[in-house]
Amino acid sequence: MRRFVIVGHKAHSTADFKLDDLAGGAGRLDVLLRCVNSAFFLSHNIRTDAEVYLVLLGPEAPPRTVRFLGSEVRYLNPDERSTGALVRNALLKGGKGLIKSSPGVYVSDQSFHDVLQELAPKGQIVYLRENGVAIRDKELQKDVTFVLSDHKDLTPEEEAELESMTKDVVSLGPISYHADHCITIVNHEMDTRTF
Amino acid sequence: MRRFVIVGHKAHSTADFKLDDLAGGAGRLDVLLRCVNSAFFLSHNIRTDAEVYLVLLGPEAPPRTVRFLGSEVRYLNPDERSTGALVRNALLKGGKGLIKSSPGVYVSDQSFHDVLQELAPKGQIVYLRENGVAIRDKELQKDVTFVLSDHKDLTPEEEAELESMTKDVVSLGPISYHADHCITIVNHEMDTRTF
Repeated sequence: MRRFVIVGHKAHSTADFKLDDLAGGAGRLDVLLRCVNSAFFLSHNIRTDAEVYLVLLGPEAPPRTVRFLGSEVRYLNPDERSTGALVRNALLKGGKGLIKSSPGVYVSDQSFHDVLQELAPKGQIVYLRENGVAIRDKELQKDVTFVLSDHKDLTPEEEAELESMTKDVVSLGPISYHADHCITIVNHEMDTRTF
Repeated sequence: MRRFVIVGHKAHSTADFKLDDLAGGAGRLDVLLRCVNSAFFLSHNIRTDAEVYLVLLGPEAPPRTVRFLGSEVRYLNPDERSTGALVRNALLKGGKGLIKSSPGVYVSDQSFHDVLQELAPKGQIVYLRENGVAIRDKELQKDVTFVLSDHKDLTPEEEAELESMTKDVVSLGPISYHADHCITIVNHEMDTRTF
């Protein structure tokens, strides 16, 4: 299983945004929606071995984590707007505990800490950062969680939390890419490996 | 210079679509808009050494080609909707000949054939296709044009046209990816090379 955890520092945690304004009023939710696209979509297929955790830390009720499971997900389309509708629907239904909002989409009040605690026992955790080990030289496990930030870096506190759980810091090169592009590159790299 | 030519077989060539319906009424223009994002965006930067040619073959006035130049472009944001607005604006202004619709965005009535004829003298042309030579084993020039199709394959006629101009058929592996993901992977591969 390939898992991607993306932290949205300003992304709204309540459904108080318009689908016409995902890049503005939703707190750059558009960044996270493109990550969902990159994680799951193949040409005419969905990656059933992928999972995405969007950790929403913006107003009004943070944290909220929206989870997409490739093995179960339905009604997922590549465009930002329709995926935004799935996230908004999840936020409308979510509160305490883990709730299934639509097939393969779940919402919870999990924090970044909670998500890492849940995923750590499941396999390798990899922090994607510019100054890590080059990915092509790095041993990756089949069960792996890649952790990324949105358009802002992880905060020092988030970074400390993550680095307390893994020493695997991996780089895609000296150039800093958008989070969704990082996921596409990682998926391609994983596709070239045999497990 | 890295150039990307993407053929949109159903993408509308007139501005008769709504920005709320880019994946539907605009003939899967969303696919092409994501290609623009993949070609240009770095974290907090734009690739000034990239150019994109969107060849629009859908109704009502095909062909139209919308060209983005990274060295000149302004008002380009990563989300689909705002890039869709730039394309719609170009189509509103375009007709015969080459017209600049906004900084770094040009529209013309060039066909796929015309675009290839224009780009062939500028350097290597590469056809991205599943059954080509693995990209990591392929010599790529600094001045290179990658040709891709939207969610449909090139037609036999388009493929014949392209293959009459280049023998460089390059693959990203056995898995078939979305066009925008292909561009992200190609850009990353090019970033690892020294020219």
